[in-house]
Amino acid sequence: MSDVSVTVVRNILEAQEKIARINRALFDSKGVFVINLMSSPGAGKTSLLERTIAALKDHFRIVVIEGDIQSQEDALRIKRLGVDAVQINTGGACHLDANMIQSALEQVSLDGCNLLIVENVGNLVCPAEFELGEHKKVMILSVTEGDDKPLKYPLMFQKSSVLIINKIDLLPYVTCDVDKIKRVVRELNPQIEIFEVSCKTGEGIDQWLEWLKNQISSFKQ
Amino acid sequence: MSDVSVTVVRNILEAQEKIARINRALFDSKGVFVINLMSSPGAGKTSLLERTIAALKDHFRIVVIEGDIQSQEDALRIKRLGVDAVQINTGGACHLDANMIQSALEQVSLDGCNLLIVENVGNLVCPAEFELGEHKKVMILSVTEGDDKPLKYPLMFQKSSVLIINKIDLLPYVTCDVDKIKRVVRELNPQIEIFEVSCKTGEGIDQWLEWLKNQISSFKQ
Repeated sequence: MSDVSVTVVRNILEAQEKIARINRALFDSKGVFVINLMSSPGAGKTSLLERTIAALKDHFRIVVIEGDIQSQEDALRIKRLGVDAVQINTGGACHLDANMIQSALEQVSLDGCNLLIVENVGNLVCPAEFELGEHKKVMILSVTEGDDKPLKYPLMFQKSSVLIINKIDLLPYVTCDVDKIKRVVRELNPQIEIFEVSCKTGEGIDQWLEWLKNQISSFKQ
Repeated sequence: MSDVSVTVVRNILEAQEKIARINRALFDSKGVFVINLMSSPGAGKTSLLERTIAALKDHFRIVVIEGDIQSQEDALRIKRLGVDAVQINTGGACHLDANMIQSALEQVSLDGCNLLIVENVGNLVCPAEFELGEHKKVMILSVTEGDDKPLKYPLMFQKSSVLIINKIDLLPYVTCDVDKIKRVVRELNPQIEIFEVSCKTGEGIDQWLEWLKNQISSFKQ
């Protein structure tokens, strides 16, 4: 890249980081614990959200920001569960950025909210590079994607606090070595929490919910 | 974006389009039919390549360019099948561009080559926006990704000449309406060819190979 384009890119990133810090200050001031939920398309972000909301909505006020290139389908799925959801359509962009989150926050109140979940665009690459102001990054990998993904897409595994290995109900029918995934991921990121779940059957969801409730409780104190 | 950044982005895209045209002219002059193979991570690009190479390598000279953020695993998988493969590591970038292809072509001879397959980075978004100089874009969607993906990620479905719906052996175990996928995709792109396959069992692969052999033969004439 030329010097001019390097400068432009740096300016854009710095502006985004500044907005991410403003978002974070807002979340902290409101006492809202915020998760940035990321994965490949179809790994189960919305299904995990549905399970999580069903289990926790009577105990916490939850708000969801749905990021998609286009369509309103996911926000509609979430609103049907009785929680507030705002849809961001990126209009082509392959990830959310802090500025989009700031705009979405104008459409929903965080008063009394304990948990804000941002569902990023389905993409195992770029979302990991953009800070939104969240407290924790949580990623999902489906066993149908194969056990070579941590080595091929390491950044998201390195930046996430939690890896949810989803669709374990399909393990009898696919070639995927979950132990290999866990071994490679822990080499990339020794602190990461790993939960093995099936959003379809509900298996393993309780451990994820336990972690999440602990985070919300610690954050409130 | 500022005027300066718009200009910079436009200049980068124009430079890329120019290199794509140079790549295309090289492919045409060598009589090489070139496919840009795209999908989400883990949808089955490398598995389709393995099936395709095994079936066609005794009839055509095939070369593969493997695009990954990092790791050499896919090029090694392909070289084991006895064809030339060049690995591109994008070092973070979520898609291949024409410039990367031009560099990769310095590492392999296209003399006598009939078919060049470029396996793009696993990403259902950005790869569709970058012309590499290819003749046809071919995309894979796995049934495990769900039937809502064409509506949520329309650009790749609009730009591809072929959609391969993979992992149909898993249909008894997942919630995915293949007829809905086909209906929505044909609304987005009436000309698209759709093949339903299982790279695991081999079901449906023959129709894909038939299409590919016809393309190579038409191109040589």
